[in-house]
Amino acid sequence: MPIARVHRLAASGPDDASGLEAAIQAGAIDPGGILAIFGKTEGNGCVNDFSRGFATQSLSLALARHIGPERAAEVCYVMSGGTEGAMSPHWTVFERVEGDGLAGPALAIGRVHTAALPAEALGRLGQVDQVAEAVRAAMRQAAIEDPEDVHFVQIKCPLLTNRRIGEAEARGVTVAVRDTLKSMGLSRGASSLGVAVALGEVPRSAVSDVVIGRDFSLWSARASASAGVELSHHEVVVLGRSAAWSGLITIDHAVMADAIDIEPVRAALARVGLPADGQLDPRQRSHLVALLAKAEASPDGELRGERHTMLDDSDISSTRHARAYVAGALGGLVGRSMIYVSGGAEHQGPPGGGPVAVIVER
Amino acid sequence: MPIARVHRLAASGPDDASGLEAAIQAGAIDPGGILAIFGKTEGNGCVNDFSRGFATQSLSLALARHIGPERAAEVCYVMSGGTEGAMSPHWTVFERVEGDGLAGPALAIGRVHTAALPAEALGRLGQVDQVAEAVRAAMRQAAIEDPEDVHFVQIKCPLLTNRRIGEAEARGVTVAVRDTLKSMGLSRGASSLGVAVALGEVPRSAVSDVVIGRDFSLWSARASASAGVELSHHEVVVLGRSAAWSGLITIDHAVMADAIDIEPVRAALARVGLPADGQLDPRQRSHLVALLAKAEASPDGELRGERHTMLDDSDISSTRHARAYVAGALGGLVGRSMIYVSGGAEHQGPPGGGPVAVIVER
Amino acid sequence: MPIARVHRLAASGPDDASGLEAAIQAGAIDPGGILAIFGKTEGNGCVNDFSRGFATQSLSLALARHIGPERAAEVCYVMSGGTEGAMSPHWTVFERVEGDGLAGPALAIGRVHTAALPAEALGRLGQVDQVAEAVRAAMRQAAIEDPEDVHFVQIKCPLLTNRRIGEAEARGVTVAVRDTLKSMGLSRGASSLGVAVALGEVPRSAVSDVVIGRDFSLWSARASASAGVELSHHEVVVLGRSAAWSGLITIDHAVMADAIDIEPVRAALARVGLPADGQLDPRQRSHLVALLAKAEASPDGELRGERHTMLDDSDISSTRHARAYVAGALGGLVGRSMIYVSGGAEHQGPPGGGPVAVIVER
Amino acid sequence: MPIARVHRLAASGPDDASGLEAAIQAGAIDPGGILAIFGKTEGNGCVNDFSRGFATQSLSLALARHIGPERAAEVCYVMSGGTEGAMSPHWTVFERVEGDGLAGPALAIGRVHTAALPAEALGRLGQVDQVAEAVRAAMRQAAIEDPEDVHFVQIKCPLLTNRRIGEAEARGVTVAVRDTLKSMGLSRGASSLGVAVALGEVPRSAVSDVVIGRDFSLWSARASASAGVELSHHEVVVLGRSAAWSGLITIDHAVMADAIDIEPVRAALARVGLPADGQLDPRQRSHLVALLAKAEASPDGELRGERHTMLDDSDISSTRHARAYVAGALGGLVGRSMIYVSGGAEHQGPPGGGPVAVIVER
Repeated sequence: MPIARVHRLAASGPDDASGLEAAIQAGAIDPGGILAIFGKTEGNGCVNDFSRGFATQSLSLALARHIGPERAAEVCYVMSGGTEGAMSPHWTVFERVEGDGLAGPALAIGRVHTAALPAEALGRLGQVDQVAEAVRAAMRQAAIEDPEDVHFVQIKCPLLTNRRIGEAEARGVTVAVRDTLKSMGLSRGASSLGVAVALGEVPRSAVSDVVIGRDFSLWSARASASAGVELSHHEVVVLGRSAAWSGLITIDHAVMADAIDIEPVRAALARVGLPADGQLDPRQRSHLVALLAKAEASPDGELRGERHTMLDDSDISSTRHARAYVAGALGGLVGRSMIYVSGGAEHQGPPGGGPVAVIVER
Repeated sequence: MPIARVHRLAASGPDDASGLEAAIQAGAIDPGGILAIFGKTEGNGCVNDFSRGFATQSLSLALARHIGPERAAEVCYVMSGGTEGAMSPHWTVFERVEGDGLAGPALAIGRVHTAALPAEALGRLGQVDQVAEAVRAAMRQAAIEDPEDVHFVQIKCPLLTNRRIGEAEARGVTVAVRDTLKSMGLSRGASSLGVAVALGEVPRSAVSDVVIGRDFSLWSARASASAGVELSHHEVVVLGRSAAWSGLITIDHAVMADAIDIEPVRAALARVGLPADGQLDPRQRSHLVALLAKAEASPDGELRGERHTMLDDSDISSTRHARAYVAGALGGLVGRSMIYVSGGAEHQGPPGGGPVAVIVER
Repeated sequence: MPIARVHRLAASGPDDASGLEAAIQAGAIDPGGILAIFGKTEGNGCVNDFSRGFATQSLSLALARHIGPERAAEVCYVMSGGTEGAMSPHWTVFERVEGDGLAGPALAIGRVHTAALPAEALGRLGQVDQVAEAVRAAMRQAAIEDPEDVHFVQIKCPLLTNRRIGEAEARGVTVAVRDTLKSMGLSRGASSLGVAVALGEVPRSAVSDVVIGRDFSLWSARASASAGVELSHHEVVVLGRSAAWSGLITIDHAVMADAIDIEPVRAALARVGLPADGQLDPRQRSHLVALLAKAEASPDGELRGERHTMLDDSDISSTRHARAYVAGALGGLVGRSMIYVSGGAEHQGPPGGGPVAVIVER
Repeated sequence: MPIARVHRLAASGPDDASGLEAAIQAGAIDPGGILAIFGKTEGNGCVNDFSRGFATQSLSLALARHIGPERAAEVCYVMSGGTEGAMSPHWTVFERVEGDGLAGPALAIGRVHTAALPAEALGRLGQVDQVAEAVRAAMRQAAIEDPEDVHFVQIKCPLLTNRRIGEAEARGVTVAVRDTLKSMGLSRGASSLGVAVALGEVPRSAVSDVVIGRDFSLWSARASASAGVELSHHEVVVLGRSAAWSGLITIDHAVMADAIDIEPVRAALARVGLPADGQLDPRQRSHLVALLAKAEASPDGELRGERHTMLDDSDISSTRHARAYVAGALGGLVGRSMIYVSGGAEHQGPPGGGPVAVIVER
């Protein structure tokens, strides 16, 4: 019977695989069981963020020394750039082992790599469908039947660079957008609608090229997408609860309606055994294995009726502002800064808000 | 008997005096009674932030139309740049009117402009002493005798530019630092130690040129200093409680030990009548007239033992990171984003933390 | 008979009108004769650049003390943000005096303020037509009949902010673009096509909403447009040669085909009396009263077949990169850094290149 | 008899080793002969620039596939971050082959890796001496006896991070500076004084901890130092002319007195066979194999008496400004953008200027 194990490891830099190596040496992690590694890396989280690719290369090299390059390549590396504010760079390692753990339902994990996405499909229906299919496959792998049991779907999706745009146009096709930073948002948006379709949150018939990146009334409560220059396909990781899995780890989720809407997260923490009026106390914190959240600047330029300046700032991308701010709001709630807040929440939760998953050890 | 009134006005840009104008026209503010205006303006909050000077010029022009340029110049304009995250640009207008309000002790306000600070005194004992003297004078003006009744001292202090350094060196003197961004920190630090000396938090004998900007075990729990290129002297505003004042407004303060240490602020809110387990509810929020806080990246590079990257980021100043993050933590507590978080907390609260004042209408 | 005089004044900050004041006091400038002031101010040159508005407010306040606020408001203030690299912040004051100068043709100046541009017209034909009409009016004012005698048309045009977009959408109209930084490019582009239409460089029939910001084969060799948050109308200044004007000052122009194409500028300098094989020598430099240029990152991501990274950089806007780089190329040619290089050259010169004007004292 | 070969390869990203791989496959490069690879990578060139480490890891992995990891580790990888303006990311591969080339003197190459530098020695005499010794060893390797025959010494040196500082202080020692960005400048400065000592440009007795980073009247005309987080030792590459080497490649150098002082570079180009009044023509350009230069913002805040804003800009590091600007000035001279301009020229050329090497194929 599968058991999910989740390990949070500090990273001293994008290429720091020493924590992973130490955990393998100590027998705490079986490298052959690793399904996915989520990373918060300290780049700008935007187009020219090489910390993500550097991390992926470094972690896969480290794993390859133990399990060979082919199996190391099967792991889903989901690197999310940007540790603004006091967010602490770290890796979250998702491992599947066999054994008899505490009876479930417990955390269940499925992961899929898609084929490469042609540049002209990015931000369009082709991407939605490719991701939806991958989510369904990952659910099967995780032994999750009911979409209601899915609590988070993490996607790593590609973006357009000037070069990729040029190659596409040389082939005679058009791309959805020529602005490379904007392409990150479209890619996240289309991927998230793919999740929403797979989970039954949005009917497939409601999605068209026109609504992607525009009609934000369509969203998933459980999608989290992160774009990066370091891949041209998708990595899809489904996290949920399944009675076919056992062990100490469980998961729940919440949706923040805006950047400081922390009360739904407080409620989710209470549901999985960590109730707190104020900030989580040190003992509770030690049970919080991972907090995964999405953040974005509300597109109407306001938060609860008061103007913010994130979208008019030409020095700092709004995604960087939003990550710092939401990481502060959630840090104030849970009392620690080693959490995973990813920027750009197009079609991921309501405009200006976003989904949050909490993973705890019971 | 004096009554302190405090008005929070949204600003659509650094030069937006329309809210002030409207309040004057509506009779809500008596321009002749304005003692100080604190502003959060949307520049970078660092050396080349012209939003602060633009705001000061625009607000004083607006006031001059009502009370003449001379009296408009007597107002303390304390512009703090940087509205990172969803912090909302706004003005907080402090007004003194005469009348019979709700019996005190109530909010009491004193304000002093110092003489210009020579460039060579910046970040040194000369600045400490000039500020300490000004704080004492402002306390007398506010009719506050016991330093314990002072809950916040807001300082606007100068910085060094390349030009000012050159002029000083041409006069044959040396400056404390030649890095202009660093000069902001030293100026904030020396000003804050001036507050600490005046309030009896640090003995004068413990302060020397050597400890300024270095020995952060010396700090004030109530100082808040903000440096700017737009002035060469200090503006000093003392906020406290005095039985000689009346009215609905009161104040208290807390000290955050680190960037997510929000529980002391929750306690201060409770002490002034706004108790809340989770986030303040909408009715409570409407009583919170102002929240004034300091933020900084902890100088040891860690928050609760976990690494942050703010001090190694060469793209975004650590003060910008810290403002966004702390504004998020406090926004999560109070449920709104129109708060005043100022960056750079040298000798203002413990390293990595900072003082917070809450001003509420009873 | 009119004489054009051009004064270049160093600025120690966006609000530094002391050089202007000193020149007026010394009788070198007649404040009543000032037609326009071009400024390079030290903001980011993008959406949230308040150095431009601060400069306009400060210079117009200084002039108002001499000629009253109404006549001060008639001056065209064209503030271009961004002094990247070693570009030196300065004001270029264009003055018209009456007298008998050296027989012309000499520099002739015309200037027009348009009405406010509705947000929905920005980046569309409405803006093209409004600007074209203004250029024709300014030519008449300058006594220039032949469009060939126009050597530079400087436009200051508005941009969209989140607030302006919201107001337009509340009126039920759509805007050309919702990205505020992008709106600067569209506004510059439409303005420049307005110049091209007025000067006969592009037929009116070739311009439609679709080509603006897209078909860069349409361009003006003499347009220079700079967008700013500080105005909602256009300022249009036509610079050319006219036999109806006299005096020592003349003008010519060149078009750079790319960011390092300095040889056409060298040729233009030679035509107006400053021939040089290498860098201008100190005596020649003293005759160069102004150099006005446009710069942009080539939209295909390459310079002479070699990749540049300006369009994939999410930390620094490509306009900032391009200004620094082109200012270096032109600084290497003319031997000084107090030149006016403005970013964003949509429809201003060929893609990746831009127009350059040289104004010299004979 | 050794022949130096130099290859310039475009890079599509920090991890793009495809050009190197293709050249090896085509037989154009013998991987066993590679002594050093200089790279311009597209990070910020400051503390948190991971593009340098990513490039080093990627290139060494590619080489290891051909010559094994041990010999791949012997290559000097000198990655200089920052391709501001239109500078084009690329690798310059220095190769030593045996054969009978065109009789020398020709380009001669020596390279040395030092031991790791303790954090407390950085920016102090210990670093000066370690580098001076390495330069002498590299000269011997290159068969260059007379220091006058050395035309460029490229150093890659370490920097301090918050973590390294903490480790040093935990050992009870102090570091020269606690500001990580500043540590880059001190490291470059001490390394460059090491070159100056080795080449006899500055007497060893004139150097002390106090002058490093302060007395910029001491400088080398041929040192180029680049700091990076990706190493803790030094890579030292000496480039000069030696009669013991043969082949088509030669080298000369110039010193720019300020950021737009391009005439000395024009003279150096003429000395090695590329005379040009204006910009190099396409045929000449094809002979220019590499141009290596240093750039910095002049520390007095002026260029030829006119103020620049690079040192007061808190949004963009002055090194980024200076690289863009100087790359523009040199690009205007040589007519191409694939050149190597490295930022931070402490003790490398006079204040505000810097050394430039030109490597040409005869």
